Amino acid sequence: MEYEVLNRINHPNDIKEIDPSEYKKLAKEIRHFLVTKISRTGGHLASNLGTVELTMALHLFLDFPEDKLIWDVGHQSYTHKILSGRKEGFDHLRQFGGMSGFPKRKESPCDAFETGHSSTSISAALGMAAARDLSGGNEKIVAVIGDGALSGGMAYEALNNAARLKSNLIIILNDNHMSISENVGGMANYLGRIRTNTGYQNLKDDVEEVLRKVPHVGNAIVKKIKRSKDSLKRLFIPGMLFEDMGLTYLGPIDGHNVKEIQNALESASKLRKAVLIHVVTEKGRGYKKAEEHPSDYHGVDPFYVATGQPKNLIKETSYTDVFQAAMLSLGSEKQELVAISAAMPSGTGLIPFKERFPQRFYDVGIAEQHAVTFAAGMAAMGYHPVVAVYSTFFQRAFDQILHDVCIQKLPVIFAVDRAGLVGKDGETHQGVFDLSYFSMMPNMAVMAPKNGWELKEMLKFALDYQGPAAIRYPRGKAYDGLMDCVAPIEYGRSEVIRNGANVLMLAVGNMVEKAVEAAEKLKADGIYPTIVNVRFVKPIDYEHVKPFLLSHSLVVTMEDNIYDGGFGEQIGAYLEKEGITSEFCPIALPCQFIEHGDIPSLEKKYGLSADSIAEKIRRFVK
Amino acid sequence: MEYEVLNRINHPNDIKEIDPSEYKKLAKEIRHFLVTKISRTGGHLASNLGTVELTMALHLFLDFPEDKLIWDVGHQSYTHKILSGRKEGFDHLRQFGGMSGFPKRKESPCDAFETGHSSTSISAALGMAAARDLSGGNEKIVAVIGDGALSGGMAYEALNNAARLKSNLIIILNDNHMSISENVGGMANYLGRIRTNTGYQNLKDDVEEVLRKVPHVGNAIVKKIKRSKDSLKRLFIPGMLFEDMGLTYLGPIDGHNVKEIQNALESASKLRKAVLIHVVTEKGRGYKKAEEHPSDYHGVDPFYVATGQPKNLIKETSYTDVFQAAMLSLGSEKQELVAISAAMPSGTGLIPFKERFPQRFYDVGIAEQHAVTFAAGMAAMGYHPVVAVYSTFFQRAFDQILHDVCIQKLPVIFAVDRAGLVGKDGETHQGVFDLSYFSMMPNMAVMAPKNGWELKEMLKFALDYQGPAAIRYPRGKAYDGLMDCVAPIEYGRSEVIRNGANVLMLAVGNMVEKAVEAAEKLKADGIYPTIVNVRFVKPIDYEHVKPFLLSHSLVVTMEDNIYDGGFGEQIGAYLEKEGITSEFCPIALPCQFIEHGDIPSLEKKYGLSADSIAEKIRRFVK
Repeated sequence: MEYEVLNRINHPNDIKEIDPSEYKKLAKEIRHFLVTKISRTGGHLASNLGTVELTMALHLFLDFPEDKLIWDVGHQSYTHKILSGRKEGFDHLRQFGGMSGFPKRKESPCDAFETGHSSTSISAALGMAAARDLSGGNEKIVAVIGDGALSGGMAYEALNNAARLKSNLIIILNDNHMSISENVGGMANYLGRIRTNTGYQNLKDDVEEVLRKVPHVGNAIVKKIKRSKDSLKRLFIPGMLFEDMGLTYLGPIDGHNVKEIQNALESASKLRKAVLIHVVTEKGRGYKKAEEHPSDYHGVDPFYVATGQPKNLIKETSYTDVFQAAMLSLGSEKQELVAISAAMPSGTGLIPFKERFPQRFYDVGIAEQHAVTFAAGMAAMGYHPVVAVYSTFFQRAFDQILHDVCIQKLPVIFAVDRAGLVGKDGETHQGVFDLSYFSMMPNMAVMAPKNGWELKEMLKFALDYQGPAAIRYPRGKAYDGLMDCVAPIEYGRSEVIRNGANVLMLAVGNMVEKAVEAAEKLKADGIYPTIVNVRFVKPIDYEHVKPFLLSHSLVVTMEDNIYDGGFGEQIGAYLEKEGITSEFCPIALPCQFIEHGDIPSLEKKYGLSADSIAEKIRRFVK
Repeated sequence: MEYEVLNRINHPNDIKEIDPSEYKKLAKEIRHFLVTKISRTGGHLASNLGTVELTMALHLFLDFPEDKLIWDVGHQSYTHKILSGRKEGFDHLRQFGGMSGFPKRKESPCDAFETGHSSTSISAALGMAAARDLSGGNEKIVAVIGDGALSGGMAYEALNNAARLKSNLIIILNDNHMSISENVGGMANYLGRIRTNTGYQNLKDDVEEVLRKVPHVGNAIVKKIKRSKDSLKRLFIPGMLFEDMGLTYLGPIDGHNVKEIQNALESASKLRKAVLIHVVTEKGRGYKKAEEHPSDYHGVDPFYVATGQPKNLIKETSYTDVFQAAMLSLGSEKQELVAISAAMPSGTGLIPFKERFPQRFYDVGIAEQHAVTFAAGMAAMGYHPVVAVYSTFFQRAFDQILHDVCIQKLPVIFAVDRAGLVGKDGETHQGVFDLSYFSMMPNMAVMAPKNGWELKEMLKFALDYQGPAAIRYPRGKAYDGLMDCVAPIEYGRSEVIRNGANVLMLAVGNMVEKAVEAAEKLKADGIYPTIVNVRFVKPIDYEHVKPFLLSHSLVVTMEDNIYDGGFGEQIGAYLEKEGITSEFCPIALPCQFIEHGDIPSLEKKYGLSADSIAEKIRRFVK
């Protein structure tokens, strides 16, 4: 395709030079550009296809970088990146050293606030509005939030506060009735009723017609009704829930009609208060496969545009697959097992469980806090809930895990998926903090499996264990080596993988594979390390590990978590406390946010590759 | 007062034997009992006085312990404790070894779920309802949540999910239009409109009257209106916001009328869905002082019933007082300084700032998540927000601090009040985790002042520092010793308090005072420790501390935080990594939840008193 119109957009605000008659063509070109580029690099597809016209309208309405636009979650900001002059970035989208898939302030002054996790945008926008008002500025401030993100409690906290604003703030509710999966809950139903209810206008006309027929008495009724401030609105206007909350509601608006959105933005901007514009969009719009299966095309690997098929058809068994199968078989065995997802039944592998045991499956929407305390409630009544959430999103439920589960020592299992480096989503999504924050919680057991077999065994163990337990496992292929190391899982017990000499490798989960690889490389140097599969990061198996600590001159700890508060630091402090004089070489991530990129590049950069580990040990030994 | 009726209540469900004609008398006796007991022990007063009749109605309605009652926050559960047979406990309420001021499962089977932090009850109740339905039980399940707690996002997440329930769940909205302070936000206004709007019934009558006058045409109008499903409700019924969310709303109900509440409970229990009963209560009811100043009588120390005056009139300058004064003076100097409170302007000492700089003060309600990201938004626009929240409540904003502030390295100051042992509120309120969770966050600076002077200096420093900074300080009296140790605060620099020999004490914040005291006690043993005031737990001042580590044979770390992920563990691991062979004696709290009690008793039990520290060092040295 010739990008006839798109070629004229190379800097922020260039879209303002485009003739309105060409908007349709531009939208088409942007969609073609997005599908073409994302089909090569992978990335977030469906959400970006859904917000093309919305973003165009926003860029026509706002002046960048003075005005502030905050994208909730941020993975739908691709068209924004295009329109703010970052087309070239799409050749290396989400690649190591390339452009991020999320808003980044260092990437462009048009990215006003960085996002990644859900439901933060209204809070940030309100803060910006408060700042603007204090400094007497007149910047326009707009937050764009999906209906999925609106199920996160934080968004409601912000709406509750937005009602008090005495100046303008525009909140776009981008309603595609989806989170990553189908959206759930009372709010979703409510929005659905607004979207589908064509009756409001008709009703109003009908009533007015009837009233006209009885002029005097009719007027009396209208007068009576009007006496109650909101009552007529209440009869005729959708979105009263938001009006009740103190916001002005505009909508529903066709999210694929640039002009209509522009008009709404102009109207909204005239009010000195918070205005919610309800925009209805179609996820995946313009790419048939994605329209039909938006959930499958939420985040994609490189694919063939013609067929929609992924380019890499080799499907390796992932840890999520293993978890999925284990949940199915354990679900049959244990009637007390229930599963809870926070809007990610597919990503966490819970769809088959849901289909097989619909009564025992709960998807609570993007609401990690509720998910955990809901689980605590079920556990207090004798059930054994498994809450499956990505490592980075469990951060949102830190207090609920600590305060609602751990204090009462309730048997809730935290299936911590996407732990360690997740790669291309970058800083906001890396699962590199969970060992630290789960390990500091009293009463918690923290496990990490060395391979697929062990994940299943740990899940079994956790179901027999009467207390809170977290099992963290990485994104991607489940390691299928070491299948002969099958010591049964016991509370707080590690597993010896191989007996060697001088060098002791204490490896956590995913890093056991790396330890084996590194050991292989060290053979040539005459180094034969002992390898211990840690299994429990909390409680640590000091009893059985101590003799090894004493009998080896170098202790290497290995984890794909930050060092701070992680496993290695605990071992280091233990060595010191016990007065063990072995040398100590912790291998872990530094206490910093890890950028996006393919995992091997990141492992290399941060010293987690087998090569870097072997090299580090070599240097120590010499 | 003779507790004529109350004396007959000694076990759960005893209230059911009381004749309804005696309910008023019972309520009066309970109030007298509460005021008398709390005036001796201290405790939560106003909220408990407000829920006497509500609790009576609930105990008449429910069978304990089969039915489940969940108190949000839980400090309003005193009458529940009385009616479930725990009157005797009030003689040692909140004392070391005595009865807790919050629901505790180990205390009574009538305490179905433990609470302490806000906004968790609906989630827990929903989990219990799901469990009941799975197991085919028919227990009644009731959550009681205040309108203040309803501003927490988690409560909304739960309401959103409650809409999907196909069985009975009762949510009591205990509306006293207060958090600890006056309640704020769109929801509070909405509830206020419902409470004060007496017009609904009048309007309905008026309209019907008018309609009756025009039988035929009038009917046509009613018919038209009824065609739109919710419209009549929408005209006449309050609480449509909750109805829109998918709940059934009943109310508003007089929360001091037992019969009326009982009736509502009976009606609600007949519905196979989630029902919200809106009960209006008066905080402090029945004790004039508390009615007039409910905020002052939220949590009280022992007081004289006649005057309402505290028994202990010696008011020592607390860290909160120091913070309060510092905010006032810095507020004048720095126009970019803004202050944010999450429903605790009084507890955190921000009232004078609010009065002096109303434009630059924001109380967002019980909404810690929003508070932090709102601050991030302001910081992104050039302001320097101070978010003042208790240590235990910052847990609720863990993800927002990490994800919204630290990734972008925004200059937000976290004033972490009530850090360390808080005493009588116990497990759910101790501030013993913050050093661990703040220290693991990239880009964060974590400070703790040794005395009042240093708190102010750290606040000044943080305002000049262009990144996230947490300052944690304890509840209670600000240490006023060491006023001659006034080294200026520098990023990541510690302060030497005293040069000694052999023993090195590295003390964090509050523990510097303890170090000085312990050192005094050690003189008799000929031990003269070096004392270093750590100041920065992140980054740790390894550069200046290392020579001390090398030159002392015993390194003692001291912190009123759990050991895991705290300061001592970091030092221990550092010693090990650097191959420093000094002995290591970490003094910290164990990784467990610390029960309620007076602080000296807790310090003694957990080895944080000067005596226990001195004794521990003596043993090491010998």
